[in-house]
Amino acid sequence: MERNPAFLKRIKLNKVMISVKEAFQLILSNVPVMSPEKCPFAEATGRTLRVTVSADREMPPYDRVMMDGIAASSEAFLGTGQVRLQIQGHQPAGVSANTLLDSTSCLEISTGAVLPHGADCVIPVEELEIVDGVAVVSEGAVVRAGHHIHRQGSDRQQGEALLHAGMRLGCKEVAVAASCGAVELSVSKIPRVGIVSTGDELVDVGTKPKPHQIRRSNTHSLSAALEPALGLAQMAHLCDEPRAIRQGLADLLDRSDALILSGGVSKGKKDYLPGMLESQGVTPIFHWVAQRPGKPLWFGIGPRSEPVFALPGNPLSSLVCFHRYVVPALEKMAGRKPSTVAQQQPLIEACEMKPNLTIFLPAQVISNKDGCGVKPAPAANSGDFAGVLGTDGFIELPAGKGTLPAGSVLPFHPWL
Amino acid sequence: MERNPAFLKRIKLNKVMISVKEAFQLILSNVPVMSPEKCPFAEATGRTLRVTVSADREMPPYDRVMMDGIAASSEAFLGTGQVRLQIQGHQPAGVSANTLLDSTSCLEISTGAVLPHGADCVIPVEELEIVDGVAVVSEGAVVRAGHHIHRQGSDRQQGEALLHAGMRLGCKEVAVAASCGAVELSVSKIPRVGIVSTGDELVDVGTKPKPHQIRRSNTHSLSAALEPALGLAQMAHLCDEPRAIRQGLADLLDRSDALILSGGVSKGKKDYLPGMLESQGVTPIFHWVAQRPGKPLWFGIGPRSEPVFALPGNPLSSLVCFHRYVVPALEKMAGRKPSTVAQQQPLIEACEMKPNLTIFLPAQVISNKDGCGVKPAPAANSGDFAGVLGTDGFIELPAGKGTLPAGSVLPFHPWL
Repeated sequence: MERNPAFLKRIKLNKVMISVKEAFQLILSNVPVMSPEKCPFAEATGRTLRVTVSADREMPPYDRVMMDGIAASSEAFLGTGQVRLQIQGHQPAGVSANTLLDSTSCLEISTGAVLPHGADCVIPVEELEIVDGVAVVSEGAVVRAGHHIHRQGSDRQQGEALLHAGMRLGCKEVAVAASCGAVELSVSKIPRVGIVSTGDELVDVGTKPKPHQIRRSNTHSLSAALEPALGLAQMAHLCDEPRAIRQGLADLLDRSDALILSGGVSKGKKDYLPGMLESQGVTPIFHWVAQRPGKPLWFGIGPRSEPVFALPGNPLSSLVCFHRYVVPALEKMAGRKPSTVAQQQPLIEACEMKPNLTIFLPAQVISNKDGCGVKPAPAANSGDFAGVLGTDGFIELPAGKGTLPAGSVLPFHPWL
Repeated sequence: MERNPAFLKRIKLNKVMISVKEAFQLILSNVPVMSPEKCPFAEATGRTLRVTVSADREMPPYDRVMMDGIAASSEAFLGTGQVRLQIQGHQPAGVSANTLLDSTSCLEISTGAVLPHGADCVIPVEELEIVDGVAVVSEGAVVRAGHHIHRQGSDRQQGEALLHAGMRLGCKEVAVAASCGAVELSVSKIPRVGIVSTGDELVDVGTKPKPHQIRRSNTHSLSAALEPALGLAQMAHLCDEPRAIRQGLADLLDRSDALILSGGVSKGKKDYLPGMLESQGVTPIFHWVAQRPGKPLWFGIGPRSEPVFALPGNPLSSLVCFHRYVVPALEKMAGRKPSTVAQQQPLIEACEMKPNLTIFLPAQVISNKDGCGVKPAPAANSGDFAGVLGTDGFIELPAGKGTLPAGSVLPFHPWL
């Protein structure tokens, strides 16, 4: 990872909660960028480019025929009436350019072929008939020089930059890299992301819980939400015992490029995490954010500049904080411009705001021919995860007084 | 794969082009559903569930404490004024329920703990002070029975269905499966998807092309667009030689659950594919769709019910057809309800329609505080792939006369 500037941007960790915007900015300004590595282009899907990829040839690299038909000289069409051209042969795609004998001849050609020497127009099969080796061009056919020809270099010049550092390599970027012969690409290393649950009430998914226990789900949902190109999940569990936590944290900090913990950050007697993290060399940046769910969110920077997120343990809180803060941080680590807000969506119905508190509200996307928008789900408490199942993501309701009317446009974060 | 009904739904393959809607419906009605298989739940992200997952216990499974603080009996608060409660101990999360000695006592508790026997309310740390083993509850504190308690079974009953067959297993579904102890899930098998380029003008990405050649990019962009949970890409190339195509197709049909070819489906002399596919036992369903780009799209069903898509070879055409037709077909194969239309987006500027032709227009998503919408990119021809780089997806402009005004809501397909 590239080292941080000498001083960390941090705020006083007092009891005054910071806003969602401040928390977001503090995270982004403290998160380092991973170093680059080489990657075969065919394995680079979803990763972030760290170099410029330029056109190694003009695009297109030759005068490219755009229709199946014949290539001819437009001189043959200077007069009026039907034009009959002797077919001198067939020039498929993938062979070098033939030469037209004269303006009374033509060559059958296919889409993707090189324009034959001496030809300056293409007449599609739909506008001609072939009779005894002669192409008879319909009287109504519009024929002019350059027609149906994709001219060499008309899209891009040789050496022109096509892909830039910081781009995510999706399907179209991969296609462009392939067409430029970029067999190997420089991309950001994938961070090892420790995903850690805490809490003695949690048991393994394969275990039958006692009446006072529940099964571990946060580590699984967070690792399911982690795009493989943004992080390599390493799951762990810490029980609520100071010595075990200390040892576990030291080990996790050592082998992670980013750490995501859930639980143990609130005001309970066993909420050891913030103190323990500090004692392991993690510089605290903030604690408590004016948001619901997710108020106890804690963030710090570890001894090797690794970001450390301690998310509240409630399943909904931890998943919301992951989408709102951790994903953009991982995008920044990848060297990408973080997607500050994924989408903007209009509200289908009015929504009550809360003073001094940003509300993240699970919501359903309604999309029909009358338009699109989001409909908040009936209020679920942050422990009722099953109630969130029918939703598509969550809207971000700003802190404020009164009611936001239907039609108001709000940030919307789709569930991963 | 589950076999098709005895007869295939097909239309006469005449020269009359079918509409985008007809093509889409013919594909979906002919595509089979993959058979199910068992999968460890932790590896099931993105896959499609084939069974119901039900709550194995009530949700929550016990009266769950929702705040850090004390648990007490609301009887202690029947009078007015400050209430002082003797702290009899601490009950963290993960231990079985203690019993309150009497209504003048309390237990310190943490979020996620079981409500102690005899207690019926929780008072958060913010509303009390602890002095010499006594919890002094602020006079203003609102205390009532049931406060800050998430009641056993209040969200879901034991045996209630939570996840249903046909659901995609995203992060929240994985969390619910984990909390129900579903260590193994029945999910749809992942189809082996043959992705095949054709065309003698194409060379390997690692090769320096001759002046009349270009590098292969379609197989790479399509396999980059293929979500791993929807298909396992197997890339191949067929050269334009009848015997090689015949042999290659036989082999590919044999080892693929779905086949995607690009190139060789138009009206050129070497566009052998439709005929060759038929001779290999692929039943043609349609050829030619009233759309731009992508008019020569061909679709058929192979001898083992495998869908066969022959996409036009131009990079933009093949990528657009993949998003518009192949992805929904793969969703149907996964046993999922295909996403007919991914999003609905308003046009930022007016758009000219074409009579009898659906236009797929690359477009950029504009999202700022004034709202969201899509802005069509300057018209690119279907060979100019680099021109598509700055766009986020494509809009679907219906066939028609005249101009669609700004603000019209259109289907929008984001690039994968």
